[in-house]
Amino acid sequence: MVLTRKRLRELGKSIGKYKTGEYNSITDVEGVKVGHCTLREDRDDTTIRTGVTAILPHSGNLFREKVFASSHVINGFGKTAGTIQINELGLLESPIMLTNTLSVGDVLQGTVQYMLEKTPEIGDTAGTVNAVVGECNDGYLNDIRGLHVGREHVKKAIESAKSGVVEEGCVGAGTGMLCLGFKGGVGTSSRIHLFGQEKYTVGALVVTNFGQRKDLRIPTVSDETSEKQLPDGSIMIILATDAPLNDRQLERLAKRASFGLSRTGSYATHGSGDIVISFSTAHKVPHQPSTNENTMSYNFLREDGKYISQLFEMTVDTVEEAIWNSLCKAETITGRKGRTVEAFPYELLDDWNFFNEVRKK
Amino acid sequence: MVLTRKRLRELGKSIGKYKTGEYNSITDVEGVKVGHCTLREDRDDTTIRTGVTAILPHSGNLFREKVFASSHVINGFGKTAGTIQINELGLLESPIMLTNTLSVGDVLQGTVQYMLEKTPEIGDTAGTVNAVVGECNDGYLNDIRGLHVGREHVKKAIESAKSGVVEEGCVGAGTGMLCLGFKGGVGTSSRIHLFGQEKYTVGALVVTNFGQRKDLRIPTVSDETSEKQLPDGSIMIILATDAPLNDRQLERLAKRASFGLSRTGSYATHGSGDIVISFSTAHKVPHQPSTNENTMSYNFLREDGKYISQLFEMTVDTVEEAIWNSLCKAETITGRKGRTVEAFPYELLDDWNFFNEVRKK
Amino acid sequence: MVLTRKRLRELGKSIGKYKTGEYNSITDVEGVKVGHCTLREDRDDTTIRTGVTAILPHSGNLFREKVFASSHVINGFGKTAGTIQINELGLLESPIMLTNTLSVGDVLQGTVQYMLEKTPEIGDTAGTVNAVVGECNDGYLNDIRGLHVGREHVKKAIESAKSGVVEEGCVGAGTGMLCLGFKGGVGTSSRIHLFGQEKYTVGALVVTNFGQRKDLRIPTVSDETSEKQLPDGSIMIILATDAPLNDRQLERLAKRASFGLSRTGSYATHGSGDIVISFSTAHKVPHQPSTNENTMSYNFLREDGKYISQLFEMTVDTVEEAIWNSLCKAETITGRKGRTVEAFPYELLDDWNFFNEVRKK
Amino acid sequence: MVLTRKRLRELGKSIGKYKTGEYNSITDVEGVKVGHCTLREDRDDTTIRTGVTAILPHSGNLFREKVFASSHVINGFGKTAGTIQINELGLLESPIMLTNTLSVGDVLQGTVQYMLEKTPEIGDTAGTVNAVVGECNDGYLNDIRGLHVGREHVKKAIESAKSGVVEEGCVGAGTGMLCLGFKGGVGTSSRIHLFGQEKYTVGALVVTNFGQRKDLRIPTVSDETSEKQLPDGSIMIILATDAPLNDRQLERLAKRASFGLSRTGSYATHGSGDIVISFSTAHKVPHQPSTNENTMSYNFLREDGKYISQLFEMTVDTVEEAIWNSLCKAETITGRKGRTVEAFPYELLDDWNFFNEVRKK
Repeated sequence: MVLTRKRLRELGKSIGKYKTGEYNSITDVEGVKVGHCTLREDRDDTTIRTGVTAILPHSGNLFREKVFASSHVINGFGKTAGTIQINELGLLESPIMLTNTLSVGDVLQGTVQYMLEKTPEIGDTAGTVNAVVGECNDGYLNDIRGLHVGREHVKKAIESAKSGVVEEGCVGAGTGMLCLGFKGGVGTSSRIHLFGQEKYTVGALVVTNFGQRKDLRIPTVSDETSEKQLPDGSIMIILATDAPLNDRQLERLAKRASFGLSRTGSYATHGSGDIVISFSTAHKVPHQPSTNENTMSYNFLREDGKYISQLFEMTVDTVEEAIWNSLCKAETITGRKGRTVEAFPYELLDDWNFFNEVRKK
Repeated sequence: MVLTRKRLRELGKSIGKYKTGEYNSITDVEGVKVGHCTLREDRDDTTIRTGVTAILPHSGNLFREKVFASSHVINGFGKTAGTIQINELGLLESPIMLTNTLSVGDVLQGTVQYMLEKTPEIGDTAGTVNAVVGECNDGYLNDIRGLHVGREHVKKAIESAKSGVVEEGCVGAGTGMLCLGFKGGVGTSSRIHLFGQEKYTVGALVVTNFGQRKDLRIPTVSDETSEKQLPDGSIMIILATDAPLNDRQLERLAKRASFGLSRTGSYATHGSGDIVISFSTAHKVPHQPSTNENTMSYNFLREDGKYISQLFEMTVDTVEEAIWNSLCKAETITGRKGRTVEAFPYELLDDWNFFNEVRKK
Repeated sequence: MVLTRKRLRELGKSIGKYKTGEYNSITDVEGVKVGHCTLREDRDDTTIRTGVTAILPHSGNLFREKVFASSHVINGFGKTAGTIQINELGLLESPIMLTNTLSVGDVLQGTVQYMLEKTPEIGDTAGTVNAVVGECNDGYLNDIRGLHVGREHVKKAIESAKSGVVEEGCVGAGTGMLCLGFKGGVGTSSRIHLFGQEKYTVGALVVTNFGQRKDLRIPTVSDETSEKQLPDGSIMIILATDAPLNDRQLERLAKRASFGLSRTGSYATHGSGDIVISFSTAHKVPHQPSTNENTMSYNFLREDGKYISQLFEMTVDTVEEAIWNSLCKAETITGRKGRTVEAFPYELLDDWNFFNEVRKK
Repeated sequence: MVLTRKRLRELGKSIGKYKTGEYNSITDVEGVKVGHCTLREDRDDTTIRTGVTAILPHSGNLFREKVFASSHVINGFGKTAGTIQINELGLLESPIMLTNTLSVGDVLQGTVQYMLEKTPEIGDTAGTVNAVVGECNDGYLNDIRGLHVGREHVKKAIESAKSGVVEEGCVGAGTGMLCLGFKGGVGTSSRIHLFGQEKYTVGALVVTNFGQRKDLRIPTVSDETSEKQLPDGSIMIILATDAPLNDRQLERLAKRASFGLSRTGSYATHGSGDIVISFSTAHKVPHQPSTNENTMSYNFLREDGKYISQLFEMTVDTVEEAIWNSLCKAETITGRKGRTVEAFPYELLDDWNFFNEVRKK
């Protein structure tokens, strides 16, 4: 299989007015790394189209140096684990792991195990660790009941994480996913902008598994009655930024993800587990500060004016583009029960005439 | 002042695939009534551009016969009163009132007073009443510091409420509002669809006060740098349905309002108080049931399948169209400090080429 | 009427192991002031037993210099206004006002008006103001339908606010309230403790209006069957601290208030509006920072260890003692329809043998 | 080891005025079963003091016949999985599993696997399944880093579940837990009351792992300075009722659990993961209703009066007594690093003089 699929911008289209980072990827947020472990195998009795994706906020020990984080549930028909503690403490202390719905337990356990190996004090002198695992249901193409994801795949995803270019489409957790009637999967994008004297970046990584052909907001004629109805699912949205946001501000960012999602055609159907997790790399919060001080001091983005709103807009745009990238990059795939899901046909973009395209004239 | 402005559909455009109700209005939900009291006056020393809008779920005594309801905060830079009790009990027991930000107290008190007059048992033998008041900031055009809304205007808005055609644009609470760089205000829309043997209606009424010209998602060339930056505000979104939804289902509906909002160009800026209140007219819940039974029995929409998702999509579409209607119907207005805000120019719609338009080919 | 009623500690009892501040009052948090306006009047046709209480976080302009704040709903059968914006932004920008349930609108409007008078830029160049008003239902003793609270009483409550001793019992918003089968009303308490090199104070002010005689957790024989059942109500709990807590930490504090409430006998009955609002005076957050910096820097309490837990415990204890103080200080009162509610009889304390009393042996 | 430890009532004490069910156990709610798998083993290199506890709402297939449910986070320093979907849909579709903090992943996966075995349509034609796993940290006594809980233990816990008497103390998930300075673990209790013509039961099962000796609300002299400080932890609280409550009413019930918790001495310290999950067995909600109707009809408890408040009070009392039972039943245990945690000494109850004891005179 040769991956010759292109990203949205390689196809001449784009979203919004802000510039992208160097890789137009969540890894443009300095320190963020992404790794995939893809399981794609045909055995006599089973068809495996699944995997694991790991997002690492930084390369150090995430338990010892936490980052500010938040989460937001757009629609809660989902099984994401680990958000209760994020919401209470405003901190993330593990990689964010993505996989299929029925493998959350194994990936959770694998991630905990990985953290234990790297951090002998956990569960001994330093309390326990909160791992975060999100999911979408790839059961249409993947033998999801087979529970093919093991702990070794978790480790592989984490250890293969790197900065720079992120593989998109049918990789990692995106391997078996569907989106808007076509093959979906992993997509990423970023925005960068100068605020006063400082550049801030917002990046998104999504696993797309939602919507029907009829929902796709590209105005090509679609004959709804003749279309194959694919199972309807979910989206996981991970947001990273180097802007110095606290957990409340990160929650506000997370809430804007649905605005980008909406513009691609989603209306968050009943069966969707549409979950957002956001974090900032600006500060590392020690598990046990070495100071004797009563207080910790961090600088956070001023919230009186336009800066936070600009970050909101960058978020909306980067989420939307990440979704398009997941569609544009995913190739046609055949999976369980011989089902084939087509890649997004680029000719649909001929009718692309969204807001920003014309704006550029 | 002659109102000759048109609605979106009169201009040949529309949103989504579902049919509208007879009036394409929140009043298509049977029993729902809307009333406005518009304050538009120029005195020597002050310019008044404000008002009150009342939405009545039914024509009976709302305290004695409550309706299931919910609320959702898209962005909470707002002063809406009354949602704590809705969230705890899942019931609405007053008209929903809309006005300007600094008059919430007077409108709240006026509504309580109205309910007291109609309901002698409140505060005597039957506990107190929870009134609901939402707001947007019309201070750009209106002398909002003058606190010109009085209790008599509350009463007038409630008592003038009627079914059928709803006045839109610069009326009631919408009188002084701005939207996407033009004059905003009140807008409404509805969707109707057959579910099995039964027709359900979803209606929206909005007061729009958000966004800049540059955000408007119509792909006409806009020169951002030369545009006047108007103060950025909020939107109040009221959703009504006759589908038999409980409070949890109504909260799910309320959460979809932001999907329609997003498609017009909003990204819920920092300063916005974007609040949704939803209710169902399907059941009337007595304040004090006459039964001796331990339990009450209501039928609610089954939630296993596509019905609830279709209601979500209807909600997204009707909110979007209500916003467009608020823009299309509002006329040019001059207000405080001689400021003029232009009506939305219909020629922008020449570049309207949204999803649904082309779909109809 | 001579107020000769005593506080819990004057009666030889106390709660918990921490020391109180100088006044054992919310005003022990430096800068915090409390004012009451009491309405107690018998006219031919009406009996007025109500009022307004104002809590001021500091003596400056609260709009221009905001404080970090949060809120928590224990049970939401209540009409408190202003919490949506506190929850979104984590800031309080007005006095906290308390009154009777049906006068929330007037007190809200009166508070807005007061802020407008003091702050000409509000509603002109600086956006609007979010006022916060809580309530309990005093309709058993007070002609609550008469709406006797006016804006002048709001002003009086705010302008009479002072530090030092806080009047308790049948004053201000507590004038007509009932608690645990006896007369309730306003109560306050504080705790102070050394954390490293710094002393932090936590203070509570409550308006108590909940519970029956049978619920009172003092183990005196009570013959439930012969007792008069009083209407069951609510509690408003205001927490102040000078510990440098952010809004998330303040929400955690607010959630502990119910632990103190529980220990007096409440189980938050259906009809209760049990609402907590918490704030920290440690930082003043300017409405418009004068800086050109992108960020603001504040020091907040480290959250890795015992400090935050100690503040939790201080909160639980101070809320409990504030409730006892409201009972101990309120005198017997006769109100609407000739109803008399007895003062808490001190002899019940003979059977007081709570945890901490014996601990002191 | 002979378990000769007694329950609170066997020691002559009790909580509150309501009667208990036959077994004073969560299994008094008809259909509810509880199973434990206890891991207690000393090997050369490791000391295992942990386990799994399963609570089954009914004996049928929980995926095909769901029950109304809710959850509530008292303090969120915890890793409970599965609550996002409960909160969205108001339904529970798996057993509720309890274990140690670092084994949540394995127990989650084991539970999913168990559900897959019993339900071939899951992940094939019928979507996925949401399993629920709660935890406390038993790392003081147990080699928690050893991850000794496997899927076989999950199966054993589920398959050994039975009605009637529930083992308490050092069993299942409670094996290695600490509470209020003594050995904690599993505890259970129930309340039953006649509402009109119908009896409703509320039952609680807790795993207690919180608090210090100094916090224990029994007024015996305790010398704080000489006490051993144990690691501070959490509590998991499971509530079952046969009263016909919907998910919103069940959330209200869940929120009352903290009132019972508070009365034993907890103030929900920083490090606690205090999580409540509540469900009602009154209705079974089919995964796919066989009806063609648009709606489903269920009767739910009327909410206008005292019935729901009485259920609140029953909840508070049963949670408190379940906690005392966990203390009274747990025996002295020696675990990791030779640490011994003493059983709760019954002589402390000599100073027990709580509210209800005296009330009974």
